[in-house]
Amino acid sequence: MARVVQKYGGTSVGTPDRIRAVARRLIARKALGDDVVAVVSAMGHVTDELVELASAVCTDPPDREMDMLLSTGEQVSIALLAMAIHAEGEDAVSFTGPQVGIVTDPVHGKAKIQEVRGDRILEALGQGRIVIVAGFQGVTPDGQITTLGRGGSDTTAVAVAAGIDAAVCEIYTDVDGVYTADPRLVPAARKLDAIGYEAMLEMAASGAGVLQLRSVEFARNHGVVIHCRSSFNDSPGTIVREADATMEQAIISGVTHDTSEAKLTIRDVPDRPGVAALVFTRMAEANVNVDMIIQNVSEDGRTDISFTAPKTDLVRARKAAQDVVTELEARTWSVDEGVAKISLVGAGMKTHPGVAAQMFSTLADAGVNIDMISTSSIRISCVIEAEKVGTAVRALHTSFGLDDDAVTAEVSPGAGEGAGK
Amino acid sequence: MARVVQKYGGTSVGTPDRIRAVARRLIARKALGDDVVAVVSAMGHVTDELVELASAVCTDPPDREMDMLLSTGEQVSIALLAMAIHAEGEDAVSFTGPQVGIVTDPVHGKAKIQEVRGDRILEALGQGRIVIVAGFQGVTPDGQITTLGRGGSDTTAVAVAAGIDAAVCEIYTDVDGVYTADPRLVPAARKLDAIGYEAMLEMAASGAGVLQLRSVEFARNHGVVIHCRSSFNDSPGTIVREADATMEQAIISGVTHDTSEAKLTIRDVPDRPGVAALVFTRMAEANVNVDMIIQNVSEDGRTDISFTAPKTDLVRARKAAQDVVTELEARTWSVDEGVAKISLVGAGMKTHPGVAAQMFSTLADAGVNIDMISTSSIRISCVIEAEKVGTAVRALHTSFGLDDDAVTAEVSPGAGEGAGK
Repeated sequence: MARVVQKYGGTSVGTPDRIRAVARRLIARKALGDDVVAVVSAMGHVTDELVELASAVCTDPPDREMDMLLSTGEQVSIALLAMAIHAEGEDAVSFTGPQVGIVTDPVHGKAKIQEVRGDRILEALGQGRIVIVAGFQGVTPDGQITTLGRGGSDTTAVAVAAGIDAAVCEIYTDVDGVYTADPRLVPAARKLDAIGYEAMLEMAASGAGVLQLRSVEFARNHGVVIHCRSSFNDSPGTIVREADATMEQAIISGVTHDTSEAKLTIRDVPDRPGVAALVFTRMAEANVNVDMIIQNVSEDGRTDISFTAPKTDLVRARKAAQDVVTELEARTWSVDEGVAKISLVGAGMKTHPGVAAQMFSTLADAGVNIDMISTSSIRISCVIEAEKVGTAVRALHTSFGLDDDAVTAEVSPGAGEGAGK
Repeated sequence: MARVVQKYGGTSVGTPDRIRAVARRLIARKALGDDVVAVVSAMGHVTDELVELASAVCTDPPDREMDMLLSTGEQVSIALLAMAIHAEGEDAVSFTGPQVGIVTDPVHGKAKIQEVRGDRILEALGQGRIVIVAGFQGVTPDGQITTLGRGGSDTTAVAVAAGIDAAVCEIYTDVDGVYTADPRLVPAARKLDAIGYEAMLEMAASGAGVLQLRSVEFARNHGVVIHCRSSFNDSPGTIVREADATMEQAIISGVTHDTSEAKLTIRDVPDRPGVAALVFTRMAEANVNVDMIIQNVSEDGRTDISFTAPKTDLVRARKAAQDVVTELEARTWSVDEGVAKISLVGAGMKTHPGVAAQMFSTLADAGVNIDMISTSSIRISCVIEAEKVGTAVRALHTSFGLDDDAVTAEVSPGAGEGAGK
């Protein structure tokens, strides 16, 4: 008998019919002898409707009251799911985040979970009931209702799994698992059976949308095994856990891409100590989420500084860039929204030299120009023209032996010996 | 500076526009120097939508999960109202029933308030904020969310007023206050400036729908002054408080009517001790809410027993009646749904003999036959044909000097001297 947490997103509980389907799935799992906890999001359309109501009464609603409002969405879902389970003759009990002791910091709208008190869940499981917990929400130590922000329900599920020491946290989604690349872009993309936390973090951070970065971080920090799988079938998905020898055989886990960022360049800034610090202090003050940074080699005591940032931050970033140009007596600034970031991710590249070289030559052979480069120990990212993103990702996917029909990796000698899955 | 609780029902907060109107009203009241607490219901349509969702997943949802579901309705309202107040530049904070310590018994769906911890409300008032509290909901000592059932938000408002020792609990509704009769039936009906708790309780129990019986009982038990008034204008409404000398001058506070009950008769039951006990034990077991009861004089050792009960209980009542007929070897039973109950209510009638006599002769003069009679020390009720209810109520309203243009009461000498408004 295992203790299992299952997380269902807004689409999975989007209609009464789907809620009943989730109920039957939970009951089937319990029938196997497992203790089952479900963490659910708001029904697909509900959060949008609540946001619309808020904007009808207030242009800039206080974060605390937004949390009060939005947290009702998950509360509706948990009650309906518990009812649907009762309708099938099985016993269930629903709990809000505050009721089940999901304690967060007081940062409304993007609170961080500090503690999950598992006793109430364990007590209900001990009574033979299926336990339903509202995702996305928590409570501060002084009783304020908070929400966790983007990806919050995934994080709730992982935190609950940690809190009750569950064997696995199953995250149900509309795809089968984690893929070596986005199948919409790369028809030959393969589902990964398993991936380590670090590689999954780099994948999530560089554009793979299937799992939220925060939930993977939480899982790594608390040793929670995630099983990312489809809510439409019973096929095994992708296991995310501590990397081991099996996984290390793969040099590259996947190729990701991200077209949500733009590139800003500040031109002709004086090349003296403190200049870069000033640029990025101003961006931080403007709440601009800077990702990759490059600074050109200095010519005549002046240089260019380029960086990428989410397009959603551009209004603030433009204003801050203008302030910086004035303050530094730089020449000008520019924005390029037609860029994409592509990344190679894999824990194996740590010990395999030549991956970067192979990446760059593959891109060159495919006629893709590289604009910016950034690396970590298990990731290499390049900024390229947005128009070439499909070409680039497919070329890398093939070059590193990730294609569907590849039995072993076709890594060039310079990149060390590799093995595909 | 006074401490004021204002309660707004589902219609008053039914749309974003109306929520903004309530926000402005609260702010205007605070500007007068008062500490203001608002208790609000769910937006008009929301509860029905939630009930519909529940019935789409479960035919007989558990009461606990219904409370989990329905309590979200008020939570949405409080958040939106707090936002609307912020939008006007004033500070507000919303609290759910559980947050503000509205402690109830564990009877889901119709919980009774046991305690209101006023400290959190008082703290927020002390910070100069308008406080918004969710009506209709509470929490058990072990943290289960409960709802209070019909009239729950009125009761929450009165309980909060008691908990923070407010000067007045203003209940906003779609009518101007408590009337001497239903204005739709009696064009000459007058609004009462004030009425005592006992008379208001009898009015509420005998058909005056403006205030919920439970909230008036709670107000009487805790000495809370209720001001029942319109949410569409600023006219003074009706004050409900401990009766005093001024109010006692009126013999009759009003004439109420109720067409929601039916009359059941069990015919030809043996007239022996324990028979009535058995009839009403069976009705109680069937959860039938029996109101008036009469038993005819015995003839040949057999008698008829008649009683009234809500039409909504009739399915259960019919079944119980058939069981009783079988068990007692009575002849038969019958139901009459074409009846109405009309009541004269007034604390003054305690000390004024002849009110009953005048009531009966007024009805006789109007050609209205009386079917059943029941009395309390401040109420006389008659069951009559439903078709005659308008005629009867208007005749009594005129006879007891309650008409709009009546300066002094026209009570006949036998009824003692009376005074109108």
